[in-house]
Amino acid sequence: MAKPKKQPRPKAVTPKGFRDYFGQDVTQRSEMLQTIAGVYHRYGFDALESSAVETVEALGKFLPDVDRPNAGVFAWQEEDEGDKGEWMALRYDLTAPLARVYAQHRNDLPTPYRRYAMGPVWRNEKPGPGRYRQFYQCDADTVGSASMAADAEICAMLSDTLEAVGIPRGDYIVRVNNRKVLNGVLEVMGLEEGETREAVLRTIDKFDKVGEAGVRELLGKGRLDASGAYIDGVGLAPEQAEPVIAFLTSRADDAAATLSNLRAAVGDSAVGVEGVDELEQIAALLDAGGYGSDRIVIDPSVVRGLGYYTGPVYEAELTFEILDEKGRKRQFGSVAGGGRYDDLVKRFTGQEVPATGVSIGVDRLLAALREKGRLGSVERGPVVVTVMDRDRMADYQAMVAELRSAGIRAEVYLGNPKNFGNQLKYADRRNAPVAIIEGAEEKERGIVQVKDLILGAQIAENATLEEWKERPSQFEVPRDTLVARVRALLEEQDVQV
Amino acid sequence: MAKPKKQPRPKAVTPKGFRDYFGQDVTQRSEMLQTIAGVYHRYGFDALESSAVETVEALGKFLPDVDRPNAGVFAWQEEDEGDKGEWMALRYDLTAPLARVYAQHRNDLPTPYRRYAMGPVWRNEKPGPGRYRQFYQCDADTVGSASMAADAEICAMLSDTLEAVGIPRGDYIVRVNNRKVLNGVLEVMGLEEGETREAVLRTIDKFDKVGEAGVRELLGKGRLDASGAYIDGVGLAPEQAEPVIAFLTSRADDAAATLSNLRAAVGDSAVGVEGVDELEQIAALLDAGGYGSDRIVIDPSVVRGLGYYTGPVYEAELTFEILDEKGRKRQFGSVAGGGRYDDLVKRFTGQEVPATGVSIGVDRLLAALREKGRLGSVERGPVVVTVMDRDRMADYQAMVAELRSAGIRAEVYLGNPKNFGNQLKYADRRNAPVAIIEGAEEKERGIVQVKDLILGAQIAENATLEEWKERPSQFEVPRDTLVARVRALLEEQDVQV
Repeated sequence: MAKPKKQPRPKAVTPKGFRDYFGQDVTQRSEMLQTIAGVYHRYGFDALESSAVETVEALGKFLPDVDRPNAGVFAWQEEDEGDKGEWMALRYDLTAPLARVYAQHRNDLPTPYRRYAMGPVWRNEKPGPGRYRQFYQCDADTVGSASMAADAEICAMLSDTLEAVGIPRGDYIVRVNNRKVLNGVLEVMGLEEGETREAVLRTIDKFDKVGEAGVRELLGKGRLDASGAYIDGVGLAPEQAEPVIAFLTSRADDAAATLSNLRAAVGDSAVGVEGVDELEQIAALLDAGGYGSDRIVIDPSVVRGLGYYTGPVYEAELTFEILDEKGRKRQFGSVAGGGRYDDLVKRFTGQEVPATGVSIGVDRLLAALREKGRLGSVERGPVVVTVMDRDRMADYQAMVAELRSAGIRAEVYLGNPKNFGNQLKYADRRNAPVAIIEGAEEKERGIVQVKDLILGAQIAENATLEEWKERPSQFEVPRDTLVARVRALLEEQDVQV
Repeated sequence: MAKPKKQPRPKAVTPKGFRDYFGQDVTQRSEMLQTIAGVYHRYGFDALESSAVETVEALGKFLPDVDRPNAGVFAWQEEDEGDKGEWMALRYDLTAPLARVYAQHRNDLPTPYRRYAMGPVWRNEKPGPGRYRQFYQCDADTVGSASMAADAEICAMLSDTLEAVGIPRGDYIVRVNNRKVLNGVLEVMGLEEGETREAVLRTIDKFDKVGEAGVRELLGKGRLDASGAYIDGVGLAPEQAEPVIAFLTSRADDAAATLSNLRAAVGDSAVGVEGVDELEQIAALLDAGGYGSDRIVIDPSVVRGLGYYTGPVYEAELTFEILDEKGRKRQFGSVAGGGRYDDLVKRFTGQEVPATGVSIGVDRLLAALREKGRLGSVERGPVVVTVMDRDRMADYQAMVAELRSAGIRAEVYLGNPKNFGNQLKYADRRNAPVAIIEGAEEKERGIVQVKDLILGAQIAENATLEEWKERPSQFEVPRDTLVARVRALLEEQDVQV
């Protein structure tokens, strides 16, 4: 008889480009998002959670992100009893679904509509180091208001949000620019449209990376980049490039001086003047709201997204220094960005509806909070009640029930209790601060053993320190004082840590 | 010249079978999940958030849910520069990803591993009324423990969870059964395997719907169902069917009597006796933990999932009555279910790992809380500061900033302020409790108008009531008392509502 073919076992792997989150990576993000939602809610923004799936038709074919124009979506074709139907896809951001939802429900939604949304989005990109295909976004947008007060409000809210999650004032800055000002500068240069204009726009986008001198070279003859490759320039004469450089470097000591520099840069371009007026309104509103230049500044060097947005553009940057992978100091950098886009629902309805909004990079902001020590790096585990006597499981369950009723995280060991060493190893792996032991002898005497696992670990590390000797790492307490004594010990540990 | 072809506009519709959630439908679910996570955490369960996407290989082909064996997943094939790759799919539940994650990380995870997970899952089913293709699940499982203490703990936790989210004791019951007891009954009947056994199992699954008499008929000759169709029976003689009926109806006044009935039903079947012993252990542990029969009962009539699970099975049912769509009273019914399954990771590793867990039906539980009036049906909106003078937007922004600093949800009107009526209509649509008005005259006098919109609405409805006349629906207050007066008014409204 032929041997039956063995089915190969499936591989247990996270799909490439995806991640699993464990323990406090989940809860810390969840808490941060709750805090952000609280600020957004207080500003009058309403929650929206659209479906993760959209029709490809509603999504549109391309991502708005200029860095990755060919990046794709995860898509499949509907099938109904063999008949092929519509193409569906996972959302790639939270703005495209907002456009669909607003177009669909615009008669029932208030106008203006302030909404926030948070959740995963998916990008069908080639996975790479640090490049994930599923990640969280957290957006707030105001749809249906052309007022600069909407933009100013988003900037103020972004500032409040960063402080609410634990980035102290002084460690971040919200920077504001305006696409119309740039358009005005290009108009003054005679670059209303055409290839040169596009090339200039692309060059400006590199300002963040290559700086003023680099942009000068790239607007002119070209530039030898770090890898030794020669990058052809746009080919402008130095004096032709000057207005762009003037724009990018026009930030002065205060908003009034910056705005005056920008007015000079846009000359008599109508759109340019409009852009400077808009920035002036935003600056005045923020000033009246008490948001000084220690929190929000007009800064024409913000170029990220200038190609995508149609009016004001804003970006939140963390200004404290961290060490990069090579041990060099550098600023933490951008954690949020946004701006005004006036074609949100036009694809669906034909009507232009003004909108402005911001997106927070959830993972980067979490990383920043960890960097600042605002989030614990190792979560304290539960109190572990060990099992000395398999037949008295009910006694041990009663202990954890009492501890939990007092709000103390606690669990009973549920593995095979035979080997007591395994139970302590388990407690260790759980980062348990305390283990409880009650064998037959303890039971008879009406006491339990309380083992201080944090002190125990410290003693193991610093065996010679005299001070530890005064505090025993294991002691017995009357059974009926268990909860009180464990609570006291946990508080003592909090002070020590 | 030929007219350029017009691109048809995309339709703005939620994909069929999917939903969008607005405002408090999002926040109430989020709050409920936070509360549940809090209970789970206190029990020592750790959060896990796996990726929404899995390889089809890791998921396995079929859903575990016996009701819909052919239901599918949303799947697509990876593509790398034209080359077709692996098939990927959206997760259809939270158990299959747990199996993959546990198999993948079993050497780094504690054993036993208690984890909870909450999030959307996707089913590629034909959409229908009340049948959605994306919905939330909220699971807790203990992997790697064969102890009945793990099952008892899950039942206790389920009971605590229901009370924590607002289902009072007496309005729910957690019922516990055991697949091994049923196996014992079938063994006693001589139905260890084969078609008859399968037919009996399928029939038992209908006990919820057709009751004792219905199951009797279906185990025998057959039954005329409500629609008039005749359903063929299994064909057992009445006395042959008796052990199954005895099993299903063996619940007595207390656990001891129920267990004694079950012992009689399983006779000397080894697996049956094992099942009764397991139930006895669970009952003893719950009793010791103070979970009486007002919260958790041994009830052999729980049949949902008996075909899927391998040991204890549990279900939480809400016992209060609601009116169904036809106005008839009926019990709210099941909101959570689970049980023990011992083949969780065997597909991946070849090793049997015992596991037990529960899944809460998030949407049904939310519906129940709304039914019990535990969740507000209409959320109070923000305080709306109206715009009387477009040029003084900074003044209005300063007001909302003050209100927000005091923790009061507030916003300034951002639409076109020309038509004041539109501003009040907007406030109405936002369910605003209060509107603030400050025109040029008020500004000059240093006061603002406070409009009580809730009282205003009540007066509009009950114009004749004398009592309202004592309280004006609009009054003026000094500008510098704005925050205090608005807070006082909101508190007064809370009392009135």
